[in-house]
Amino acid sequence: MVAAWGDLIVDGRSRALDHALLGLVPDGPGQATFELTRPLARFDGKLFGGTAIAVAVALAEVETARPSLWTTVQFIAGDTTLGDRFRCTTEVLAEGRSAAQVRVTAHVDGREVFCALGATAHRKPERVEATFERFPSVPAPETAAPFQLPIPAALRAEASKALRNIEMRSAPPLEGSPAPATHLTLWARVPGHPATPAVMAYLADMVPLSIARAARRAGGGTSIDNTMRFSGAEADEWILLELDPHLASGGYGHGGVLVWSPSGELLATGGQTASLLLFD
Amino acid sequence: MVAAWGDLIVDGRSRALDHALLGLVPDGPGQATFELTRPLARFDGKLFGGTAIAVAVALAEVETARPSLWTTVQFIAGDTTLGDRFRCTTEVLAEGRSAAQVRVTAHVDGREVFCALGATAHRKPERVEATFERFPSVPAPETAAPFQLPIPAALRAEASKALRNIEMRSAPPLEGSPAPATHLTLWARVPGHPATPAVMAYLADMVPLSIARAARRAGGGTSIDNTMRFSGAEADEWILLELDPHLASGGYGHGGVLVWSPSGELLATGGQTASLLLFD
Repeated sequence: MVAAWGDLIVDGRSRALDHALLGLVPDGPGQATFELTRPLARFDGKLFGGTAIAVAVALAEVETARPSLWTTVQFIAGDTTLGDRFRCTTEVLAEGRSAAQVRVTAHVDGREVFCALGATAHRKPERVEATFERFPSVPAPETAAPFQLPIPAALRAEASKALRNIEMRSAPPLEGSPAPATHLTLWARVPGHPATPAVMAYLADMVPLSIARAARRAGGGTSIDNTMRFSGAEADEWILLELDPHLASGGYGHGGVLVWSPSGELLATGGQTASLLLFD
Repeated sequence: MVAAWGDLIVDGRSRALDHALLGLVPDGPGQATFELTRPLARFDGKLFGGTAIAVAVALAEVETARPSLWTTVQFIAGDTTLGDRFRCTTEVLAEGRSAAQVRVTAHVDGREVFCALGATAHRKPERVEATFERFPSVPAPETAAPFQLPIPAALRAEASKALRNIEMRSAPPLEGSPAPATHLTLWARVPGHPATPAVMAYLADMVPLSIARAARRAGGGTSIDNTMRFSGAEADEWILLELDPHLASGGYGHGGVLVWSPSGELLATGGQTASLLLFD
């Protein structure tokens, strides 16, 4: 449905800023490209996992003209670098009245580097609307202190060159907050960008950090996959990431994330598996 | 790695019962088939979601000779029926020393009906081993009462013909259990089968039920995807499913699951999105 690329409107909401953030360029039916620039890369210049899932969400939405419901991205090759051009193919595998099934594959120089599965869906009116999780009480984003990613000494020189467009603030739970102590709560935004599904996916790629923190170790990890599930609601800018580390075992870790609006609406939930890199 | 099909041993553990349960038949390099029989189908004769993810886990393991780390399966076509033969292709997309990346696609009569992404991995020794979730206190499986799926009147005649190999028992939390009241805890097993990753995936396809229960409605839903993440540990037979419904919105629902051994070891975690079918 390449026509949708003209205006980048999905169920009445503009996705133009998503496409600008990710540098997505249409390249024929079901085809698009983006270049791995500094803001879309990790400190070491490789593809940032949040970029890949955001690209998959944005392409699935624009090719089906429906908002994202769920997306999982699999990281196949880790040896991408700044300046690489990613060629993305979006296949619409099935289309019903409400939901569509999509697969997005991305290649660099003919090698497949990530693959994503997902569904998009027009939400139905007059259905059960309910949230079964509890909003953590935390300081408001406007008054919260900046959050600095813990960076190992060996990467600090590289990190100082990074040019990221993500802002994070500490959101330690207030007295009486319902979340367990292992959960890590952080405010996040791309300044000036509404928290669409693509932007939420871009920001939420933080599970390995929460696993390292819960294990009382410095470090993080390399994502093996990244999964996001969306409620259909969006936020103006700030979102609260409530990271829920599950376990660490044999060099790998699993965890989840709840994504909240500042007013306490559950916008998305997710999960991730990572190869852990724990120091000290 | 078709050689592994000879003995069906993965990291020293037999997968022969997994393949017997699923009726998997090798059919050339990277190819396998299974037939949709009564025990592998839903009440209405369509493919049971747990069957699809179990097949994907089992094929990824045997093709890479490594135990499953994570798998997501996407349901593309829902119009399968008893007697259909599913032709599965397993692509090994990347292989490192520890982890391998895999994609499994299944076709019936040339139509793609499900697609799965996943990783398998030899676990590494002397790494951080930690669980950040709390085991719910529930009655032991041996003393627990049978659990009956809530079945709408229109499906009861069909359900009575079902020939499933899954046994479930109620596991209501005991006084002081740490889990929130929205969580649904159930013992599950395939009698006589160890709880391998494939069997855990087969049993854990229950998130829609927990969403309906939390919303205080009868019903369930149709899975859109099913994601499982494994610790590397397995259980003899019984596992405890701790279902964690996240939200219901616009006709869709999301939720998670924690899979525990009877002794309180966290074996796996998962997530699922479903199209909800809520009655009354």
